[in-house]
Amino acid sequence: MVKGIKITTIGGGSSYTPELVEGFIKHYDELPVRELWLVDIEAGKEKLEIVGNLAKRMIEKAGLPIEVHLTLDRRAALENADFVTTQFRVGLLEARAKDERIPMKYGVLGQETNGPGGLFKGLRTIPVILDICKDMEELCPNAWLINFTNPAGMVTEAVLRYSNIKKVVGLCNVPIGMEMGIAKLLDVDHSRIKIDFAGLNHMVYGLDVYVDGESVKDKVIELLTDPNNTSFVKNVKGLGWEPSFIRSLNLLTCPYHNYYYKTKDMIEKDIKKAKEEGTRAEVVLKLEKELFELYKDPNLAIKPPQLEERGGAYYSEAAVRLITSIYTDKGDIQPVNTQNNGAIASIPNDSAVEVSCVITKEGPKPIVIGDLPIAVRGLVQQIKSFERIAAEAAVTGDYDTAVLALTINPLTPSDTIAREIVDEMLEAHKEHLPQFFPKKEAVKA
Amino acid sequence: MVKGIKITTIGGGSSYTPELVEGFIKHYDELPVRELWLVDIEAGKEKLEIVGNLAKRMIEKAGLPIEVHLTLDRRAALENADFVTTQFRVGLLEARAKDERIPMKYGVLGQETNGPGGLFKGLRTIPVILDICKDMEELCPNAWLINFTNPAGMVTEAVLRYSNIKKVVGLCNVPIGMEMGIAKLLDVDHSRIKIDFAGLNHMVYGLDVYVDGESVKDKVIELLTDPNNTSFVKNVKGLGWEPSFIRSLNLLTCPYHNYYYKTKDMIEKDIKKAKEEGTRAEVVLKLEKELFELYKDPNLAIKPPQLEERGGAYYSEAAVRLITSIYTDKGDIQPVNTQNNGAIASIPNDSAVEVSCVITKEGPKPIVIGDLPIAVRGLVQQIKSFERIAAEAAVTGDYDTAVLALTINPLTPSDTIAREIVDEMLEAHKEHLPQFFPKKEAVKA
Amino acid sequence: MVKGIKITTIGGGSSYTPELVEGFIKHYDELPVRELWLVDIEAGKEKLEIVGNLAKRMIEKAGLPIEVHLTLDRRAALENADFVTTQFRVGLLEARAKDERIPMKYGVLGQETNGPGGLFKGLRTIPVILDICKDMEELCPNAWLINFTNPAGMVTEAVLRYSNIKKVVGLCNVPIGMEMGIAKLLDVDHSRIKIDFAGLNHMVYGLDVYVDGESVKDKVIELLTDPNNTSFVKNVKGLGWEPSFIRSLNLLTCPYHNYYYKTKDMIEKDIKKAKEEGTRAEVVLKLEKELFELYKDPNLAIKPPQLEERGGAYYSEAAVRLITSIYTDKGDIQPVNTQNNGAIASIPNDSAVEVSCVITKEGPKPIVIGDLPIAVRGLVQQIKSFERIAAEAAVTGDYDTAVLALTINPLTPSDTIAREIVDEMLEAHKEHLPQFFPKKEAVKA
Amino acid sequence: MVKGIKITTIGGGSSYTPELVEGFIKHYDELPVRELWLVDIEAGKEKLEIVGNLAKRMIEKAGLPIEVHLTLDRRAALENADFVTTQFRVGLLEARAKDERIPMKYGVLGQETNGPGGLFKGLRTIPVILDICKDMEELCPNAWLINFTNPAGMVTEAVLRYSNIKKVVGLCNVPIGMEMGIAKLLDVDHSRIKIDFAGLNHMVYGLDVYVDGESVKDKVIELLTDPNNTSFVKNVKGLGWEPSFIRSLNLLTCPYHNYYYKTKDMIEKDIKKAKEEGTRAEVVLKLEKELFELYKDPNLAIKPPQLEERGGAYYSEAAVRLITSIYTDKGDIQPVNTQNNGAIASIPNDSAVEVSCVITKEGPKPIVIGDLPIAVRGLVQQIKSFERIAAEAAVTGDYDTAVLALTINPLTPSDTIAREIVDEMLEAHKEHLPQFFPKKEAVKA
Ligand SMILES: [Mn+2]
Ligand SMILES: [Mn+2]
Ligand SMILES: [Mn+2]
Ligand SMILES: [Mn+2]
Repeated sequence: MVKGIKITTIGGGSSYTPELVEGFIKHYDELPVRELWLVDIEAGKEKLEIVGNLAKRMIEKAGLPIEVHLTLDRRAALENADFVTTQFRVGLLEARAKDERIPMKYGVLGQETNGPGGLFKGLRTIPVILDICKDMEELCPNAWLINFTNPAGMVTEAVLRYSNIKKVVGLCNVPIGMEMGIAKLLDVDHSRIKIDFAGLNHMVYGLDVYVDGESVKDKVIELLTDPNNTSFVKNVKGLGWEPSFIRSLNLLTCPYHNYYYKTKDMIEKDIKKAKEEGTRAEVVLKLEKELFELYKDPNLAIKPPQLEERGGAYYSEAAVRLITSIYTDKGDIQPVNTQNNGAIASIPNDSAVEVSCVITKEGPKPIVIGDLPIAVRGLVQQIKSFERIAAEAAVTGDYDTAVLALTINPLTPSDTIAREIVDEMLEAHKEHLPQFFPKKEAVKA
Repeated sequence: MVKGIKITTIGGGSSYTPELVEGFIKHYDELPVRELWLVDIEAGKEKLEIVGNLAKRMIEKAGLPIEVHLTLDRRAALENADFVTTQFRVGLLEARAKDERIPMKYGVLGQETNGPGGLFKGLRTIPVILDICKDMEELCPNAWLINFTNPAGMVTEAVLRYSNIKKVVGLCNVPIGMEMGIAKLLDVDHSRIKIDFAGLNHMVYGLDVYVDGESVKDKVIELLTDPNNTSFVKNVKGLGWEPSFIRSLNLLTCPYHNYYYKTKDMIEKDIKKAKEEGTRAEVVLKLEKELFELYKDPNLAIKPPQLEERGGAYYSEAAVRLITSIYTDKGDIQPVNTQNNGAIASIPNDSAVEVSCVITKEGPKPIVIGDLPIAVRGLVQQIKSFERIAAEAAVTGDYDTAVLALTINPLTPSDTIAREIVDEMLEAHKEHLPQFFPKKEAVKA
Repeated sequence: MVKGIKITTIGGGSSYTPELVEGFIKHYDELPVRELWLVDIEAGKEKLEIVGNLAKRMIEKAGLPIEVHLTLDRRAALENADFVTTQFRVGLLEARAKDERIPMKYGVLGQETNGPGGLFKGLRTIPVILDICKDMEELCPNAWLINFTNPAGMVTEAVLRYSNIKKVVGLCNVPIGMEMGIAKLLDVDHSRIKIDFAGLNHMVYGLDVYVDGESVKDKVIELLTDPNNTSFVKNVKGLGWEPSFIRSLNLLTCPYHNYYYKTKDMIEKDIKKAKEEGTRAEVVLKLEKELFELYKDPNLAIKPPQLEERGGAYYSEAAVRLITSIYTDKGDIQPVNTQNNGAIASIPNDSAVEVSCVITKEGPKPIVIGDLPIAVRGLVQQIKSFERIAAEAAVTGDYDTAVLALTINPLTPSDTIAREIVDEMLEAHKEHLPQFFPKKEAVKA
Repeated sequence: MVKGIKITTIGGGSSYTPELVEGFIKHYDELPVRELWLVDIEAGKEKLEIVGNLAKRMIEKAGLPIEVHLTLDRRAALENADFVTTQFRVGLLEARAKDERIPMKYGVLGQETNGPGGLFKGLRTIPVILDICKDMEELCPNAWLINFTNPAGMVTEAVLRYSNIKKVVGLCNVPIGMEMGIAKLLDVDHSRIKIDFAGLNHMVYGLDVYVDGESVKDKVIELLTDPNNTSFVKNVKGLGWEPSFIRSLNLLTCPYHNYYYKTKDMIEKDIKKAKEEGTRAEVVLKLEKELFELYKDPNLAIKPPQLEERGGAYYSEAAVRLITSIYTDKGDIQPVNTQNNGAIASIPNDSAVEVSCVITKEGPKPIVIGDLPIAVRGLVQQIKSFERIAAEAAVTGDYDTAVLALTINPLTPSDTIAREIVDEMLEAHKEHLPQFFPKKEAVKA
């Protein structure tokens, strides 16, 4: 048996890759990576070269025997992989910009993982992920698929429901971010904070929060509603809740909850921002260009600090932590997207949820949640329904199903607006949605 | 044992009463009413006299031995009652007008059973209903409470959860209205239509629909999405759905679904209407005045046809049909609000649901639904959560709980707007919400 | 469209058939049977002739235009049938005698629907039923399958789980028998008794019992435990419970519960009886011979009263009542075996249960039970598990699965005895269990 | 705040105590015990002195600053305790001997935690535990109750259901024993073995088993059914299963499963053994006498090796491991009895189950199991029902409820035998079952 593990990163030309590589370098003792395969598509060839060469320099500098392979041949990259990570973006940032711009025309949130943007990112991404799964079945049936690609909840749902790959985990940096936020609020080290997470991707709640094992939820809620604490509240995105609401909700929220509990304000804010500085995709497009300029520097052999502005903080930490715990059968607790199997009552057993899990060599095992608090049960179920129906639309290419998914999304103001947005976005993303545009058979050969 | 049954109608001075009386007259053979007690409060004394005297004339004309009692003494009216029906309105139509007007100022739906209006009608009504339940425990512990008072789902939830009265049924005319609508669409007699109802009050779906026992759902959906059928669609309130949406939803909707699937349009329409002709309460105030003028006519001894414009069609039919089936142990199927007990998976067993039930002497027994279709599971759960938290706020008088209830309601655009509406409406309805305004103890005796 | 309905009775040569025919005659007004196809296998040809000719004479005497067809061609009989009833016995009474005799050698209950006998009757029957289902898919896809063949619960489970026929109902006379027993105990007419049934076939409980819609359960329990009432108790099979037990169980039991709550006594009694007068199959063999002698009489044109001794009372009544309610979309309540779909909590949704259902043209719709009383939840689940695993063994022909099914059956004293009984019974029934004895491929052609 | 923790051991005079003390000594670094209070009743005073003095000598020898307090004053012992462990035996071994002897007269298993013995041990123990809980509420409301007293499942159920103490864990050495057995079978170190445990106390299954995180269940099942491996199988109690059964069950069993899957053999074996060498209680009585003679030796300052013959191996290890993980918020995984809360589907959320849990400062959090395998779902539910109804009988002192509990127990051959055993055992244990023998009020003062 070959020693060390083989990791395949699909979308390896991403600007995030240096962070991931940094993680592998830092944790090499626990996680002996033998081969790292960065794979991308033709259109991403140049970026792959740039970022791949930076990765090689970083590893060389660290003096580690990790082989880095750069390739456009996905099948070669998958063969005998131990872990497959996915971080690609179908249609690149240009498609994301459309996900953001088009809904705003209808007064609807333009964001890449929620509402219409989340739906269409899912419609573009899911067929590709399922295609990867088919290759994995054949080429690396025992590998774990660690999916970072958004919308990660919908993608995990689709893999569980429509592929034969059962070793799949969806990963997000939101839970770590929540821990960091609480650590800062309480001024204690991150390592002392634990949160009981439950919900869905980008719809995850903290049911309780502990410092050194003792619940501090009451104190946290008190701080969050303390009028003298507004300086903090203002600084921490997503925590500016009405005190009466957050006291009676009595849960920790995640930043994306703003879209659902402050729908009107968020849409207005995002539309204003898009006007003034461009949408997030447009901003990131510029950032990325600068980053890749930096990456090209043959003297650069570390992750450049400017990467942090790009967002996605802790993604690499989350990924390496997860892969390490699976590889070493560590048995620690991490919040991930996995099959519910009864962890959250009233969510179907075969659906994906984001919950605190024990991480073993056999993957994540959810810790029991039982009933979600009554106040959030409906919203969580509704987003789950949205994810499920969206995944179905992605697989079937059925127009009516796509309209249904968007209509029941709580961010959509009406069935008619849902239909209009679907119409415009289908057309705009046509190139990446072949399932919705079946080719007519040629009349004559 | 005394023969015949005693019915007590709380809010007996309502303009609906003649319809109810007409029902008792029509079904006297099956349902031998011995005594009908119409009870109202001091402020409703005059109406009670008018409507009560009309009732007496109607019964006299029918030649039936039904005693009609008019009283302001609720306890006397409840004593040994067999059925107690409730149709009162705390704060009268003036309060309803506030429920409608205030939310509109915030761009939010102003309606008496949904959103902020539903919340505040519940907050005013539930303490009164629970008080009636306490009297019933003492004065007529074996009686059935047939509640018409809106929001009927929330009220039934509150009775099940916070009183010792278990013999309670919540009643609504929406399901019958749906049957009538389908009958008209298909041009068949109402008696041949059956619908499998499932959901909550004012959030009820038809899972399937039959003519003479054979499913015609596909045909109905086809008609509803037929572009050549628009004249019908436009005429039937609440059926003007996007064809793609209703095809993939594949369920019958109720008119109130418009508020949730066409939120933006409905709010705009209602605000416009309120400006032009006044809110529904304001319109009804006028209608009622005219009706009571008619009722005063000593020569009138039938239900005047003008009552039908008042709305509430079939309420009386629903009530008499239900009471008769309980009384005669008929075992027919009727849609009512009752304890879920597992009928709808994922709704708590002890919550109220609106489902098709077998009606026996022991009350309604739900027919199993199982899982609701995935597309509607979240919305139904969310409204149920709203009802439950609203009921809790009504009982505890807790401000934070009221804000929570309104924030999680899908018609509310943000926690801040929820809080602002709660603040303004609490003040506006102060007189009828003593639980939120505990009296300070006098400093000196 | 042809008027009237076509009924196909598989196992038409059964001695029960005259009862069924009598039922069709009595209810012809409601249930206009156009054709009755009695179909049997070659080995049953003679009986089919005898009983078929009696049927013809009965119908002629009644003056009804029902065509009776006698055939060995099952496919011809199934074509365009509206209802298919099954009442066959694979291996005839001789096989049943083995089901009874062999277990007794091991000190285990020998009975045809419980324990090892039930298992092996299932193993023989299920492949035949599934074969019929396949024919039905092709020849009468809209027909209802009304299954009388025991073990009816296991057979219904198998059809739901392993065939594409969803229009299946399992039928048993035990519930009617319980109603009759209570009627006799209370000395009221059967028509005034209603019982809320819940459980499984031959493991069904009465949760409550009503006379004219009012619960009389307390009174019934009191009578059943009244020492002065022993004459009754002794006469009614299965009701001689310890007063302390039945008081705290607080449910109506069915006769088969004796096997589970009086295991030791029942086995001893049955072994003694088998020694003295033969097993039930052996007794019935004699009875049947006498019956068929009677049936041959060309002057006989009614169901002979001697048939009642054969057992199976009310089976025909149950069958005709069910078929009529489906055909006429009656909406009355009958206890049948159907898919659980959430009616009984903790039983899988896709399993068969025996519960009170509303009977419509779309088939039976269970009335919600919710949680079974805690005292019986385990036993019911255990029998359901037995049925499910037995059905799996019947389909797969897997030896280990058969041993597992018998080991977990509560009537089996040990895994070793289970294995020994399976071994002996497999051998004894070899001819009718081809799935367990795959033919070895011929070495040479 | 006082440093170190206070542990109170009720039934401190038990012969097991030296093992517990040894555990505290070994793990002092992680678990700094400040005070150990051994408390017993008047009748156990002498034993308490003997064992308590041994404990003091052991601690002195170890050179640790643990104070040992010996007392008959339970309230003083409980005050401000951090952990309360319970290991008492109401009625002492003499009562256990009756639990064993009486059922055997009726041909029923005589054993202290299963069948009639389990029922009566529960009836004697539960009122005492609930009394301790009441004291704890007052004297040490934040303490954890770690219950060793059998029947531990029933006792945990009773505490969860009938006391206000929610910080309770039931503990058993069976799961560790299963791990040890597998370790021996596979010849690997115990530390490398992990089992996913699910079920109830003394009815726990291993759903899967891992060596270094990789499933070896198939291999284990193969070894257990390998005819060449019989020497092992014979040596490991409870593993001599029929190969066909254990292959299709496909689970790890615990030794107590023999009583349920080999009922007949086990009863016969136990009756024979009781005749030849006395019941287990009678054997232990002798063993204990010898042990206490050893304990008296003032030169003895270690746990004498003879204690191991007493049984209860690993109990101390399990207890110290659990207390340490709670105290240090370790987050490791241990199998304990705790509230289900949805971990095992179909077991009520508020019931006690024995499952693998993450152990934190907030106590055990179950890892999700979902559905138990269909083959064991019924038996597990039946034992849970037995435990629940037995707990109810223990609290109410209701005779009928006790008969019901025993009748539904799968080890009881009939309702009549259940009633007879209850009658005889109630009389035999009268002194310790005051709830069943309410004092009549004196006629005259
Ligand atoms: Mn994310
Ligand atoms: Mn209504
Ligand atoms: Mn039967
Ligand atoms: Mn134990």
